Amino acid sequence: MQMTEELIQWLGTIGSDSDGGVTRLLYTPSWKEAQEALAAKMESLGLQAYFDDAGNLCGRLQGTDADCSCILTGSHVDTVQRGGKYDGAYGIVAGITALSRLRERYGAPKKSIEVVAFCEEEGSRFPYNYWGSTFMTGAATYQDIEQARDQKGIPFMTAMEEAGFGPGTHGRGLREDIETFIELHVEQGAILEQEQQSIGIVEQIVGLQRYTVRVQGEANHAGTTPMVYRKDAIRTASEMVIAIMNKTEEMGAPLVATVGQMELIPNTPNVIPGQVNFTIDVRHPDGSVLDGACQQLVDTVRSIATQQGREVGIERWMNVAPIAMDSALTDAIEDICQQQELSYRRMPSGAGHDAQIFASYCRTAMVFVPSRGGISHSPLEYTEPQQLEDGVRVLTDLLYKLAY
Amino acid sequence: MQMTEELIQWLGTIGSDSDGGVTRLLYTPSWKEAQEALAAKMESLGLQAYFDDAGNLCGRLQGTDADCSCILTGSHVDTVQRGGKYDGAYGIVAGITALSRLRERYGAPKKSIEVVAFCEEEGSRFPYNYWGSTFMTGAATYQDIEQARDQKGIPFMTAMEEAGFGPGTHGRGLREDIETFIELHVEQGAILEQEQQSIGIVEQIVGLQRYTVRVQGEANHAGTTPMVYRKDAIRTASEMVIAIMNKTEEMGAPLVATVGQMELIPNTPNVIPGQVNFTIDVRHPDGSVLDGACQQLVDTVRSIATQQGREVGIERWMNVAPIAMDSALTDAIEDICQQQELSYRRMPSGAGHDAQIFASYCRTAMVFVPSRGGISHSPLEYTEPQQLEDGVRVLTDLLYKLAY
Repeated sequence: MQMTEELIQWLGTIGSDSDGGVTRLLYTPSWKEAQEALAAKMESLGLQAYFDDAGNLCGRLQGTDADCSCILTGSHVDTVQRGGKYDGAYGIVAGITALSRLRERYGAPKKSIEVVAFCEEEGSRFPYNYWGSTFMTGAATYQDIEQARDQKGIPFMTAMEEAGFGPGTHGRGLREDIETFIELHVEQGAILEQEQQSIGIVEQIVGLQRYTVRVQGEANHAGTTPMVYRKDAIRTASEMVIAIMNKTEEMGAPLVATVGQMELIPNTPNVIPGQVNFTIDVRHPDGSVLDGACQQLVDTVRSIATQQGREVGIERWMNVAPIAMDSALTDAIEDICQQQELSYRRMPSGAGHDAQIFASYCRTAMVFVPSRGGISHSPLEYTEPQQLEDGVRVLTDLLYKLAY
Repeated sequence: MQMTEELIQWLGTIGSDSDGGVTRLLYTPSWKEAQEALAAKMESLGLQAYFDDAGNLCGRLQGTDADCSCILTGSHVDTVQRGGKYDGAYGIVAGITALSRLRERYGAPKKSIEVVAFCEEEGSRFPYNYWGSTFMTGAATYQDIEQARDQKGIPFMTAMEEAGFGPGTHGRGLREDIETFIELHVEQGAILEQEQQSIGIVEQIVGLQRYTVRVQGEANHAGTTPMVYRKDAIRTASEMVIAIMNKTEEMGAPLVATVGQMELIPNTPNVIPGQVNFTIDVRHPDGSVLDGACQQLVDTVRSIATQQGREVGIERWMNVAPIAMDSALTDAIEDICQQQELSYRRMPSGAGHDAQIFASYCRTAMVFVPSRGGISHSPLEYTEPQQLEDGVRVLTDLLYKLAY
């Protein structure tokens, strides 16, 4: 049990903030320190560590078969600003622990197994998510990040080169040998905790649509405009928020809708808001259900605008289809949970992960462990050592089944 | 009819912005230019112009009685940033027009009449409203503005002295001779326009209370938190906004309540808002009705928080009592409207004015003329020449009745 927890704490000291959080932004010194420390750790545990040109780090346990295909497991080493110790890091240290145990117990596998520390998933420094996994699978190339700059104006490519990566630096780019990818991750939600389940077997990563709604009213003096003459944009927007929430509950779980961002114009205590803009984020694991739900929410918003005589603009600016995990792998993980007598549930992932990039490249599975209070991207992230260990045991058995 | 409109347009050229607005912030060059031009205009029309130590400008038509008491009319010369040509200015030019006509037609009055251009009402440069009228009536002294600074850090007193005013500069401070104050103003609301009335006879300036409501929910991941586990602060705040509006309508006009400012925390599309803060501005001309209404709104907000299991903080940070105008003057104005066959309505003022400062000093009346679309503090402010003239005719008759 101790190794995974120890590795989590150890990795969490690299890039640690004064308040207990962790900040490892892509290609920064703390990020590089973490990757180099992980490489040394892999080597010390008998894995062959190497970087690719983007900065992804792999630790390889060489297989004995002539077949050069590879089973890959791992997650991302980068964090958000003031993030926690578990998000991303858990998938890497779980992989290191599992490979180390397999090697000790069973020696070399038939198929090669690698643990990966992806260089980037969060997109916290540059406005670009999943660089590590999109680079490795060929879903993105250097062209895709050419224009991206961080908040200081430093180009993505320059930051990569200054960290010692970029075209030709390590002679390793697009992978063509990966047959399976498995990602362990903390849930970042509270479903497993609430339902007291040890393991979440991800069936799909949810689809996601995002909208901006612009409600047009009429700005007016708060003292001299009788209620009956008002065209109050916040009153209309509030009706919309309530209707969106009620409608979403009515359509039922696992559908979720969130109004996370709102702007009042002019936003001053003595002026009736003339305009209110707000976002809607809608997610569901089934693409056609998601489409239907979004349509209903948009219709609801429009119909409130019409009833109240307000102009409304609705713009969809994000539309990501749901992605299914491999059903044979999902079933295999369920079998392992039953054999190990671990409680589990099949569930969608409401958040995006590197696994969604791999799902269109090779067979892919994703396993969740509980996350206390569902808190993530915060110094308060926490998963109990036993829960971390449960995930590692599932991963170890799955890798054994696939590679030995 | 022409004189008032001409004076409005003329005064509007001083401090005019490129987009048709007017900016005359207290003690700035455009403000000083306007006051000096008004002084010259007063002199040219036979009035004796003089400044007091704060920068208020008066144009006096000397009375023949030994009684030294004075009838004062006028309004403020300062504007907001990019304000309109009518707000404040109308009361001054209406007074100049009325005094000029009275002098031409009837010669010297028995009682002295003065038209005043108050140096400040808006508080747009310094965070201090009504300096001109509070200085003149003794409601404020230099001590009250000692700490005030503008956005550039310039102290109020320094700005005053640089404009040529301050203690002892003109040998005129607190007035003790004013027996009546009459202010003409554009409505800054659309009630007269909507009801096609020529004259608004102000009965009270409304009382005003302002609150900040802080709704505490729980920030959480928009994708991984099922609807049923959410503590969504914007959902609760939206219920509160709707209930505030419905309750206010139910309690009935002239009660108004406005949610003008709102802040979501963290305010990002993929996070359920953990906290929402918003303001409520409540106004009514009757103090006890206002108190009761505020209590009901606060109770409504609290009860929604309780129903939804949310913590809520409610803080009152402004409480201004309503102020009644003099009822004998109000009646006299109504008589004049009837004699002149001008349509009129008695009404509260939803906005604050210099008249509210004078109301606790001497008998005070306030007259509104229509304001197109209720627009104020904007280059789009507009009142038709005939409507301006109607107000001047009422003022002229009232001053005749009081002073001759």
